[in-house]
Amino acid sequence: MGKFITIGERLSTTAPAVNKAFLERDPEPILARAKQQLDAGATYLDVNIGPAEGYGPELMKWAVQLLQSNFDNVPLALDTSNKDAIEAGISVYNRAKGKPIVNSADAAGRIEYVDLAAANDAIVIALCNGEGIAADNDERMGYLQTLLERGMEHGMSEEDLWFDPLFLVVKGMQDKQMEVLEFIKMISDMGLNSTGGLSNNSNGMPKNIRPIMDSALVAMCMMQGLTSAIVNPNDLRLMETIKSCDVFKNNTLYADSYLEL
Amino acid sequence: MGKFITIGERLSTTAPAVNKAFLERDPEPILARAKQQLDAGATYLDVNIGPAEGYGPELMKWAVQLLQSNFDNVPLALDTSNKDAIEAGISVYNRAKGKPIVNSADAAGRIEYVDLAAANDAIVIALCNGEGIAADNDERMGYLQTLLERGMEHGMSEEDLWFDPLFLVVKGMQDKQMEVLEFIKMISDMGLNSTGGLSNNSNGMPKNIRPIMDSALVAMCMMQGLTSAIVNPNDLRLMETIKSCDVFKNNTLYADSYLEL
Repeated sequence: MGKFITIGERLSTTAPAVNKAFLERDPEPILARAKQQLDAGATYLDVNIGPAEGYGPELMKWAVQLLQSNFDNVPLALDTSNKDAIEAGISVYNRAKGKPIVNSADAAGRIEYVDLAAANDAIVIALCNGEGIAADNDERMGYLQTLLERGMEHGMSEEDLWFDPLFLVVKGMQDKQMEVLEFIKMISDMGLNSTGGLSNNSNGMPKNIRPIMDSALVAMCMMQGLTSAIVNPNDLRLMETIKSCDVFKNNTLYADSYLEL
Repeated sequence: MGKFITIGERLSTTAPAVNKAFLERDPEPILARAKQQLDAGATYLDVNIGPAEGYGPELMKWAVQLLQSNFDNVPLALDTSNKDAIEAGISVYNRAKGKPIVNSADAAGRIEYVDLAAANDAIVIALCNGEGIAADNDERMGYLQTLLERGMEHGMSEEDLWFDPLFLVVKGMQDKQMEVLEFIKMISDMGLNSTGGLSNNSNGMPKNIRPIMDSALVAMCMMQGLTSAIVNPNDLRLMETIKSCDVFKNNTLYADSYLEL
């Protein structure tokens, strides 16, 4: 088993400072957040530029080149609904440290992002939902099959589809949490990769509680075979938990100094 | 599913201050440690008096009465190899808050502790080992079956045998950790209860790392269906993790204030 892969989520237009820096092509705030995440142990960085209509391709190229030239070809997830922007980003992307990730496809209106990933030899995050959130695991599995077949038809390797069960908010959907966890096990039992934005579980909770809930959940998910997650790598408790679970799963060798690694 | 049950481990002769207090029948240190553990959310308290040859029955009676009279009949685990002491403890034990726990039987030299529990309508912690630590899960399952049959023969309910997979030290047995976790799932799939001293995993690790490892492990164990553990309830991170996992498992209703409950 390989080590758990973390995709740092902090370069996103949903953060006003990042949005401003993207719009102004101001490197400093972007590089500062990238460095914080990489220093904390992130494997991939997600680059969420929003829809970026019109200027998306140019912006994504700028961001990919900025990040890869400053951080030794750091592998990136290209996160936008703007397909031209994803293709432009990939056109300048250096694969030395890993394939680009297309974030994201689903089994409904965004199914063509699978084709896009296939055409560009990229990884794709495949959300196991259709027009709405799946009602149960049968429905999730149906979406997974649709996405998997689409990838196969376009010549992808199974390992390049990273299935996202979609984490649900505890407040309001507490009784559905175990279903999501069981679905992760189903993905794992099929030998497939998985990922997801697990902090969604703690949306709406007090700030001091979120890292506690997120850490507990990531450990449960890793037990179920989750292979990666889109996270805030600057949540120390979360990253410590991931490192610990990697030790229990024998993905990394334990050493007293492991927390500093 | 019921809430995860914590058995507080801090009343033990392995702690010099506790040992002294037991020997001198000095209530204060015992009551102080008991209060700390109960305030932190422990369900049961373990009372480990050591072998206590000769004076065991009298000491265990004293301890049981001291704790139950001061803490509203707090349920207790009677932890000693001294069978007379366990029986003496049970003879004065008040069951209003739960049956006493006999800690512990195994499938070899301590198999008669199952009989003792059966004869006294008690719960028994049943270690899934024989003369040595089990080499694999087949062997663990063999010991479990031996213990389960013994209990059935003596008229126990299945739910009163709490099977302990025996947690292994990461330093030296890192590659066996997943086996223990898989065994917990096997116990759970059989509909049986389980427990164990899970901090054994982090023996020999630096003090600042132990709560991190223990918390990650308890979440993985709860995902696998572990129903209780013998823990230090004053490890805040551990208790927060247990509460969070109980929320994900829908064993308790989430509320913003849940960490204070």
